[in-house]
Amino acid sequence: MPGRTQFESPLQTLAVVGVGLIGGSIARCAKERGLARKILGIGRSQRRLEQAVASGVIDRAATTANSAADAELVVICTPVSQIAADASRILSCGGTGLVTDVGSVKGPIASQLQAQPHQGRFVGSHPLAGSEKSGFEHADANLFEGRVCVVTPTEATPPEASQFVASFWEALGMSVHCMSPQEHDRVLARTSHLPHLAAAALALQLEPDAVPFAATGFHDTTRVASGDPSLWSAILIANRAELSGAIVELTHLLDRFRDALDRDDSAQVQQFLAAAQQSRERFLESFRGNGSGE
Amino acid sequence: MPGRTQFESPLQTLAVVGVGLIGGSIARCAKERGLARKILGIGRSQRRLEQAVASGVIDRAATTANSAADAELVVICTPVSQIAADASRILSCGGTGLVTDVGSVKGPIASQLQAQPHQGRFVGSHPLAGSEKSGFEHADANLFEGRVCVVTPTEATPPEASQFVASFWEALGMSVHCMSPQEHDRVLARTSHLPHLAAAALALQLEPDAVPFAATGFHDTTRVASGDPSLWSAILIANRAELSGAIVELTHLLDRFRDALDRDDSAQVQQFLAAAQQSRERFLESFRGNGSGE
Repeated sequence: MPGRTQFESPLQTLAVVGVGLIGGSIARCAKERGLARKILGIGRSQRRLEQAVASGVIDRAATTANSAADAELVVICTPVSQIAADASRILSCGGTGLVTDVGSVKGPIASQLQAQPHQGRFVGSHPLAGSEKSGFEHADANLFEGRVCVVTPTEATPPEASQFVASFWEALGMSVHCMSPQEHDRVLARTSHLPHLAAAALALQLEPDAVPFAATGFHDTTRVASGDPSLWSAILIANRAELSGAIVELTHLLDRFRDALDRDDSAQVQQFLAAAQQSRERFLESFRGNGSGE
Repeated sequence: MPGRTQFESPLQTLAVVGVGLIGGSIARCAKERGLARKILGIGRSQRRLEQAVASGVIDRAATTANSAADAELVVICTPVSQIAADASRILSCGGTGLVTDVGSVKGPIASQLQAQPHQGRFVGSHPLAGSEKSGFEHADANLFEGRVCVVTPTEATPPEASQFVASFWEALGMSVHCMSPQEHDRVLARTSHLPHLAAAALALQLEPDAVPFAATGFHDTTRVASGDPSLWSAILIANRAELSGAIVELTHLLDRFRDALDRDDSAQVQQFLAAAQQSRERFLESFRGNGSGE
C-alpha cells in the first residue's frame, strides 16, 4: 500500500476497469496532470480497448482482472451491479495496490465485500460528475474540476488507504468528503436517485397529445429521464431501501401541496413555493461555489 | 374589429399592459418586425414606464386602462390573478380593438369574463415562452421564434377574432394551436404546472446537510423551483382543479415505482425507466422541431 497521501511523484501504473466516459475521463485527467506513468485500461471488448489506446486515452489494454495486480491504484468504473464482483476478483489476484470505484450506491458494495479477505485494500468512492454522453470518445479531462467526490471508508479501512484515495480525487481537481457507505446512500437517495425517479414519472405521465405543449420547464425537469434505463434501474434497485423511504416523503409533500390547493389556500401554496425557492437558492450557492461554472 | 387575418399592413397602435419581460419582448419583437406603427405601454409605475420609453422598448406610456381604447390590439401581460379584471376594465372603455393576454391558466379568466358585455372582443392566449429573468431590461425580440402559442377561443368568440389574434402570434414567429380554455388547462397542468410543483417538492425535501451532494441532475430537475413564488402560487391556485387530479396521477405512478423497488423487481423498474426515456424522446423530437435551438 503506498505510504504517502500526496501525489508528489506519479504512480507507476494506474489501472482503470471499464473505459467508458468516466473511466476514460479519469485516464485522460490523470495523464494530463502527470499522476501516473502508465495507464492500463481493462475491459471486455478488445476492439474497443484498441480504439482507446489508438486515441491516446489509455497506454495499454487488457481483458482480464489479474492484469491489474501490479497497479498501485485500480479504479473500477463498471456498472454498479458489477462493482463488488469486479473488486473481489481484483483483490484476489494478490497485488498490494488499492482498489476504488465510482459507483453511485455504496452500502451494498461494502456489504458484499465484507467477507473478502483483502477488503482493507478497497475504499469506495463516488465522484459526483458525469454526463449524458457515454463512451471514452467523450472522455473529458476537466470533468472532475471543482466537483465533489464522496469517499466511503468502512471500519475495515485503514486511515492511510482512505487518505490515499482521497488525495487521488483531489489531484483530479475534486473536493473530497468522507462518510460511511450507509450515510452516502441515505443522502444520495434524496439528492440524486429520487430526482431521477421523479423526472422519469413526470416524463411517463406526459400523454402523446400533450407533447407539443411541453416547453423549457418540462425539458429541464425531465432531463435526467433520458439516462440509460439499464444503468439507472441497477442504481435505483441497489439503493431501494433508502429510496423507498424518500418516495414516501416526497408523496407526503405532494399530498400536502394538493391539500392546500384543494382548500384554495393561496397563502399556504405561496409559503411552500417560497420555502422551495430558498432551499434551491442554498443549493445554488453551494453548487456555484463548487466551481460548476454557472 | 380588424377585418384581416394577416399583418400585411401594420397596426396603428399596439398596446401592451404590463411592460415586464414578456410584455417588453412582445413590444420589441412587434417593433422589429414592423407589426405596429406605435407601441403603447400601460403600467402602474410612471418611473418604470419612462425607463421603458427611454430604452426604446415602447413608444408611449400610460398608467390608466382607458388609454388602450384606441388600440387595435391590446395584449395583457399582468399576473394571472389580475388578467380578468384588467381585461374587463379595458373592454369597458368602449374601444373596438381586440384584447388578448399571455396568462398561463385560461379557464378561470374565460369564466370571469362570461358576463362581460364585450367578451367577444377578448381572445385568450398563452405563448409558451419565457425566462427566469424578469423586467423589460431583459426583453428579447427573439423570445417567441419557433415556439408554440395556444389560443383559446370560447363559444362567444367570433372566428375572425381568433384568426386575427392567431395571426399576430404567428407574425411574432410562433406556431399557433387553438383549443378551449378548459382543454388548455388540462394539458398545461401536466406539461407545466405539475412539473413546477414536483420540482418545488424536490427542492423542499433537500435537507441542508445534503446540499453539497446535490449535483447537475438535481440542478436541472429543480430549476423551475427558483421561479417567483407569488406569480407561481397564483398560477397553481388558478388551475387547482386540474392540478389536483394530476398530482393524484403522479403520486400513483410514484407508488407503483416504490412497489417495484420494494419487491426488488428490477425488470419492472427498468421497464418504467425505458418507457419514461421513450416518452422524453418523443417530447425532445417535438421540442427540437419547434426550433428550440437544442
